[in-house]
Amino acid sequence: MNISLDKIVAELNKAKSVLIFPHERIDGDALGSSVAICIALRRLGKEAHILIEEELPTNLAFLDEGYCINEYSSDENLDVCLAVDCSDVSRLNNRKDVFLKGKITISLDHHFTNDYFADINYVNPKSAATAEVIYHILKEMDYPIDSKIAEALYAAITTDTGNFQYSNTSKETHLIIADLFDTGMDYNKVAVEIYQNVRPEQVKLVCMALSTMEIFCNGKANIAYVTQDMLKQFNATMDEADGVIEKLRDIRGIEIAIFLKEETNQVKVGLRAKAKADVSVIAYQFGGGGHKKAAGCLIEGTIEDAKKQIKESVQNYLANMKG
Amino acid sequence: MNISLDKIVAELNKAKSVLIFPHERIDGDALGSSVAICIALRRLGKEAHILIEEELPTNLAFLDEGYCINEYSSDENLDVCLAVDCSDVSRLNNRKDVFLKGKITISLDHHFTNDYFADINYVNPKSAATAEVIYHILKEMDYPIDSKIAEALYAAITTDTGNFQYSNTSKETHLIIADLFDTGMDYNKVAVEIYQNVRPEQVKLVCMALSTMEIFCNGKANIAYVTQDMLKQFNATMDEADGVIEKLRDIRGIEIAIFLKEETNQVKVGLRAKAKADVSVIAYQFGGGGHKKAAGCLIEGTIEDAKKQIKESVQNYLANMKG
Repeated sequence: MNISLDKIVAELNKAKSVLIFPHERIDGDALGSSVAICIALRRLGKEAHILIEEELPTNLAFLDEGYCINEYSSDENLDVCLAVDCSDVSRLNNRKDVFLKGKITISLDHHFTNDYFADINYVNPKSAATAEVIYHILKEMDYPIDSKIAEALYAAITTDTGNFQYSNTSKETHLIIADLFDTGMDYNKVAVEIYQNVRPEQVKLVCMALSTMEIFCNGKANIAYVTQDMLKQFNATMDEADGVIEKLRDIRGIEIAIFLKEETNQVKVGLRAKAKADVSVIAYQFGGGGHKKAAGCLIEGTIEDAKKQIKESVQNYLANMKG
Repeated sequence: MNISLDKIVAELNKAKSVLIFPHERIDGDALGSSVAICIALRRLGKEAHILIEEELPTNLAFLDEGYCINEYSSDENLDVCLAVDCSDVSRLNNRKDVFLKGKITISLDHHFTNDYFADINYVNPKSAATAEVIYHILKEMDYPIDSKIAEALYAAITTDTGNFQYSNTSKETHLIIADLFDTGMDYNKVAVEIYQNVRPEQVKLVCMALSTMEIFCNGKANIAYVTQDMLKQFNATMDEADGVIEKLRDIRGIEIAIFLKEETNQVKVGLRAKAKADVSVIAYQFGGGGHKKAAGCLIEGTIEDAKKQIKESVQNYLANMKG
């Protein structure tokens, strides 16, 4: 159950120490939201840090001006442990135990699958990003949002909405961004940091992966893959192939895009739908899950094994799809 | 000099026939703005069309629901000829004579270089897109903006602002978009039409062009090219290589990106700057022009000739650049 924002603000105001927990595999919303609230709490005289467990993605690292720490150990219990953008406690991964030691645990999120795992929770599935929730917390705190905080919130919202193009974007999203302009934030600087920061190795990897594309089902589906050998060849990481699946989906006429990532003895399968298909149905057949337009699963074996099985499943799905 | 919006609205209200002129090499703003005003004028009982001179780009064609015509000839003079998103009369190209025959000519635009070529003009260089000007015209007309008009304005604004990331985007831009949400527009449908409509041939062309990339000046500049042979090889058009230069600029550490397009006996040179450089200075050395962050020029000869000259010029520029 949601608690009201003013009660969350009351808890934060009381606290002397707050440790902030963004979800594992940190993204723009998790980090931007965490940074925004961290800045505000510090300026209010509190001890505040963001506890992370991996390196920050390079294009987001500019947001961290000394807020993030990789370890926390103390005998003294923290006043507040604050989970940000986490749908359930498993998303805190290795940091779960530290989180649960907080005198009070709070969760701020926007995932509709959130299971209200903290002592007090505020989840708004209508928010395009958790940053919208943080924005309202800061307003409720009557804390003046400055350009630094605005840039962190902007980074969070622009990444989680696919630059305002995804269907989660709302009127409210644009009104919040309009309000952030009053701080004098340099949103263009944020865009340059996030989007104009691609390694040349990544460009090569993406082109190589795209060159494996095969179109089937009369142009309605396509499939491509990335192998461990390609990563070695270009000195690239698997994460750097992440954008390929959207490029596959963006091709004219494609309704379902499939992208395969080779792992040890198994293949990670990503699925995207453009308009009418529900790819979570296909992922579910292989024990995976996800949303209507974005889902995934694991298939044991080689790229060739996975390709055969997933293509067959997509072919069946499209043959039976109405409209 | 700008005339007030209410005087322009008075002229449009008086008119029985209006012919709308977007600029040549039509883009999202020119077409979206033209469609929005065309719909409104028709619903007010006027005869209104959009006169174009090329085929519409495939990913924008969905906006034209019977508004665009390729020819106009009549002995009767039109009440209003309305130029949309044109900085000067040359941007009407082959349609210039038809335009000038209007009983009254009006220009609505947002280019700061606009030379006020029509009988009455309204130019707002602070608007991120001409669609923002059209939005205010419709408000001034007290015309209720419906979802169809909103989608045309959305298409115009999202393309002209690079999905709200370019530095022309303002608080006003987001407030207008927020207001358009009230019409129930399907902005996500617009995004799918515009961005998820790429020909597979284009993907191959872009990858081939990117594979020619050479990085120089200690990682601060890069250069790539597209040849007529590549177009033939992939059955692609030169326009389909348009996005390559942004991908070159988006690479980490690159301050100046150069993209060469092979034409007959000459090379079209595109230049982009990421942050501090002013590439219009370089374009100017070759008789070209443009803006600080985006400029272009023509160099006679082969790709190799152009490459040598432009690389030298960029090397000199970067060697002397401060900061």
